[in-house]
Amino acid sequence: MKKKFTIYDIANALNITAATVSRALNDNPNISKATKELVLKTAEKMGYEQNKLALALKSGKSNNVGVIVPRIDSNFFGSVIRGIEEELNPFGYHVIICQTNGDEAKEIANIDALLNSQVDGIFISTSSKDVASFERILRKDVPLIFFDRKKTMNNVSSVTINDFDGGYKATQHLIDNGCKQIAHFSGDLNIEIFNDRFAGYKQALTDNGIDYIEEYVVKTRSNVEDGKKAVKKLLKLKNPPDAIFSSSDWDALGAIQELRTKNYKIPEDISVIGFSNEPFTKFMELSISTVDQFPLEMGKITAKVFLEQVNNSEKVKIEKKVVLEPELIIRKSTKKTAVKK
Amino acid sequence: MKKKFTIYDIANALNITAATVSRALNDNPNISKATKELVLKTAEKMGYEQNKLALALKSGKSNNVGVIVPRIDSNFFGSVIRGIEEELNPFGYHVIICQTNGDEAKEIANIDALLNSQVDGIFISTSSKDVASFERILRKDVPLIFFDRKKTMNNVSSVTINDFDGGYKATQHLIDNGCKQIAHFSGDLNIEIFNDRFAGYKQALTDNGIDYIEEYVVKTRSNVEDGKKAVKKLLKLKNPPDAIFSSSDWDALGAIQELRTKNYKIPEDISVIGFSNEPFTKFMELSISTVDQFPLEMGKITAKVFLEQVNNSEKVKIEKKVVLEPELIIRKSTKKTAVKK
Repeated sequence: MKKKFTIYDIANALNITAATVSRALNDNPNISKATKELVLKTAEKMGYEQNKLALALKSGKSNNVGVIVPRIDSNFFGSVIRGIEEELNPFGYHVIICQTNGDEAKEIANIDALLNSQVDGIFISTSSKDVASFERILRKDVPLIFFDRKKTMNNVSSVTINDFDGGYKATQHLIDNGCKQIAHFSGDLNIEIFNDRFAGYKQALTDNGIDYIEEYVVKTRSNVEDGKKAVKKLLKLKNPPDAIFSSSDWDALGAIQELRTKNYKIPEDISVIGFSNEPFTKFMELSISTVDQFPLEMGKITAKVFLEQVNNSEKVKIEKKVVLEPELIIRKSTKKTAVKK
Repeated sequence: MKKKFTIYDIANALNITAATVSRALNDNPNISKATKELVLKTAEKMGYEQNKLALALKSGKSNNVGVIVPRIDSNFFGSVIRGIEEELNPFGYHVIICQTNGDEAKEIANIDALLNSQVDGIFISTSSKDVASFERILRKDVPLIFFDRKKTMNNVSSVTINDFDGGYKATQHLIDNGCKQIAHFSGDLNIEIFNDRFAGYKQALTDNGIDYIEEYVVKTRSNVEDGKKAVKKLLKLKNPPDAIFSSSDWDALGAIQELRTKNYKIPEDISVIGFSNEPFTKFMELSISTVDQFPLEMGKITAKVFLEQVNNSEKVKIEKKVVLEPELIIRKSTKKTAVKK
């Protein structure tokens, strides 16, 4: 193993104090140019590398920001992160990413890992039920910004989309197409985004004079298998639905696969709309209608809110709540040729 | 802004030296139990938090490992990372992730970011042309492991799949199905995995007495648009191909989309096989044949190689080259009902 040289080794070699070496390396004006050059030369000869982490500790700036997401292998979160990187890289910031799989304990561990890494900011799409771990971030004066899945906290900015409107628009679209028995795959209703989509769904039903039927709502977990299971359950009902609004594209895909193996026609027998505009929804021969959330823009805005916060020299707390408007994307899975209306 | 208390504040409050406070907080045996308790109590009352990073600097252990990948939003890399996490989390390690978009400069910046974060190990699927940045990692005595996209370096372990065999099997499968004019979407041939797949393709042609035709090889960049463009180019040839072996599922998908808009029958007119077994290849109504790379297993093995390395008390350099065998997955895009052979 190669010996690691310290400033003490340089000090010994030059017969000066370690403090002088340190000051020279840090370009302290009290140290002569000649000494600085001598120290730098010796340091180089010994293969000494300044510990950048130690410098970060001193300056309180690592130029890294941490991003925590439920999962990295979704186009939605991938695009948000790309937006963050595109905005922050030109300012010399690097982005390090952690995933939680929606597990609260893992989210807390990730926050620890990032704080220990001395990040300059943390952006979270949270799966946590309470705010204790976020208060730790704030106590350390590390800027915290929520995106997509937020908690409402004083002095904390967030960038989200209007999930209520997304749910409302998707449901209204199905109603406009003549659907009257609309099921909903809800996701975990403890998570704000899913609860908002569900609320939008209910409101659209009410506004159109359609009864809300509890057994039409199935809790799913954003994966193909859950979508299949949910459809199996719905088809067993006395009055099966004529449409499904899924809070996730993955569940919508599972639903479509299951319906096709049972020879249902989509959208004629059952219309299906998802949420997020994952790329596969467009690629399918039977393309899937969905709700676009503009993830790239969400990432860019999150980064801008952060830059505004760190560049705010007056250290005034900035709280910014940005809400993006989602957009309905109509494709084959809901596009009936003859509308029954 | 909340005042951050330091050990000097605690020392002042108790009228003892900062050194004593520091020793008490670090459970130094030379400090009496009474003093330790007093210091801890005062620290707690003041809301003083020990800087874990400073501790990491001292102990040289952060319990974080860094993973660098070209992109996070692919199922392949997502699954490798999941494998790493599943294996390392039980040992108290947290995984922080960086993406490079295949950009060498960004890869170097990510390595810096991770080294500055004092990670205990770095796992890279590299896009770099040379090894200089990796030598920096080794100089700092941070364990380095390559997975999937490796460089050959002494004393550095790697976990890869046999891309040559993958390319060979895919091409042989097309030949077995009666195809004779087989095109190849190659990816960047400076990257070892793509070069190996290409070599496997060429060898399979040779072994079956089929001439290698240079204009059948199109360089692509793992995305749908490149697949479409490549097909347009190939269809303009005097003898267009009757099959495509794509080194990436994304390009294969683009090829299929373009061929269908031009009313080619798949697999009858042109067979298409991809590489990686991305989930969408299975979900499509016209499911796409591909080569599975067992990414979850790759991640788990990478993590195990790391654990072996850090738990090796004798500080012997371990160099392990693990090569997984890929598996051909035959789906509709190459499954001809009547084989012409």
